[in-house]
Amino acid sequence: MNLILLFDDDFLDDERARLTGRRLEHATSVHRAVVNDALVVGVANGKIGTGTVTRIDSEALEMRVTLDRDPPAALPVTLVLALPRPKVLNRVIASATSLGVKRIFLINAWRVEKSYWKSPRLSEENLRTQRILGLEQARDTVMPSIELRRLFRPFVEDELPAIVGDLVAVVAHPGAVSPLPANASTIAIGPEGGFIEQELASLERAGFARASLGERILRVETAVAVALARFV
Amino acid sequence: MNLILLFDDDFLDDERARLTGRRLEHATSVHRAVVNDALVVGVANGKIGTGTVTRIDSEALEMRVTLDRDPPAALPVTLVLALPRPKVLNRVIASATSLGVKRIFLINAWRVEKSYWKSPRLSEENLRTQRILGLEQARDTVMPSIELRRLFRPFVEDELPAIVGDLVAVVAHPGAVSPLPANASTIAIGPEGGFIEQELASLERAGFARASLGERILRVETAVAVALARFV
Repeated sequence: MNLILLFDDDFLDDERARLTGRRLEHATSVHRAVVNDALVVGVANGKIGTGTVTRIDSEALEMRVTLDRDPPAALPVTLVLALPRPKVLNRVIASATSLGVKRIFLINAWRVEKSYWKSPRLSEENLRTQRILGLEQARDTVMPSIELRRLFRPFVEDELPAIVGDLVAVVAHPGAVSPLPANASTIAIGPEGGFIEQELASLERAGFARASLGERILRVETAVAVALARFV
Repeated sequence: MNLILLFDDDFLDDERARLTGRRLEHATSVHRAVVNDALVVGVANGKIGTGTVTRIDSEALEMRVTLDRDPPAALPVTLVLALPRPKVLNRVIASATSLGVKRIFLINAWRVEKSYWKSPRLSEENLRTQRILGLEQARDTVMPSIELRRLFRPFVEDELPAIVGDLVAVVAHPGAVSPLPANASTIAIGPEGGFIEQELASLERAGFARASLGERILRVETAVAVALARFV
């Protein structure tokens, strides 16, 4: 982790924070932090600064925190993602978070296997952990939202047009003629095998244009990074 | 797999191929292929076309192969990558391959843990498997080369200048001022924690300029996709 993300609960008072568990373990074994070391810290949804270690042992890390700068700018893109296989979900969430996306919808699609929706990786706790890992990686503090939508049509027909508004929305689809436009504001990425034709038609009615990420068919985790790279 | 990659050994004669093992399993369980189905196939380092199933059972898949088109254009980028953690190596190789890179160097660096070089994932067989998975994903046939360089300085000082030639070479480094140039021909990406200053200086003497992939620090697998996305 390139930044230690702090939460309200971690603060002993306005200036002092106390960490245990994973973050203590990481500071000890990876950073090999000792007293007086200055660690990069950030407050969840707040500023970034320095945590000066005042105590570190097997029980706890205590630090004096000064916050002096803003987190990096958010990526101005909403990601609408067909729920990936559980095996790749964690990586995709952490990766999209590290790239600065602040609003993620995980949606159903014909080629999303029903069992994926039962994965324990969709727990609030796991999704929170993956976002924290992404923020810590990228030295960001602003937690993206993740919204689950288990029904494709009501989401795309009733909710998505208002999310898109007057801005540019695209669905990444192999074989599309146009490249991804640089002003896209909402990007939809399908499941392995892609959205089916009816789903693409629904997305088009909701204001989405088909866009290509190149001639090659990419795995979802690669496709997400390639699509978002245009905005980094 | 979006393409079944065929090798010389698979051919019974000029037009007929016979598959067993992983590819038979995949054609059966994922494609649910039956006789007369037309599958997308390609010959390793050769053309792409159609395999019409003439037999499929628990023992073998036989197909009549016609090849009629070229694989997608290669990505005109050489990737010089500090050897990633074994856990992410497979994904990075498959992902870079799927994006069309045709020459990959895996090199040592100060922050590459020595144990990584002992990973069984560096076996010729595993590296071949990961490249095949990347080609099958992207419907490509042209196997990238992977060259291992366990000594940083001899590689960077003696070998790399000739690889770069007169073309543009960049090393992705957080905090660099310039963005990745669109005409980069060789891209170096460091280990977790980045190349150290001496390594960056060596790379600069070998003709590399520092370039930024944005304000955020990215995991190697995300950084590779984001860097290569500029050329897709």
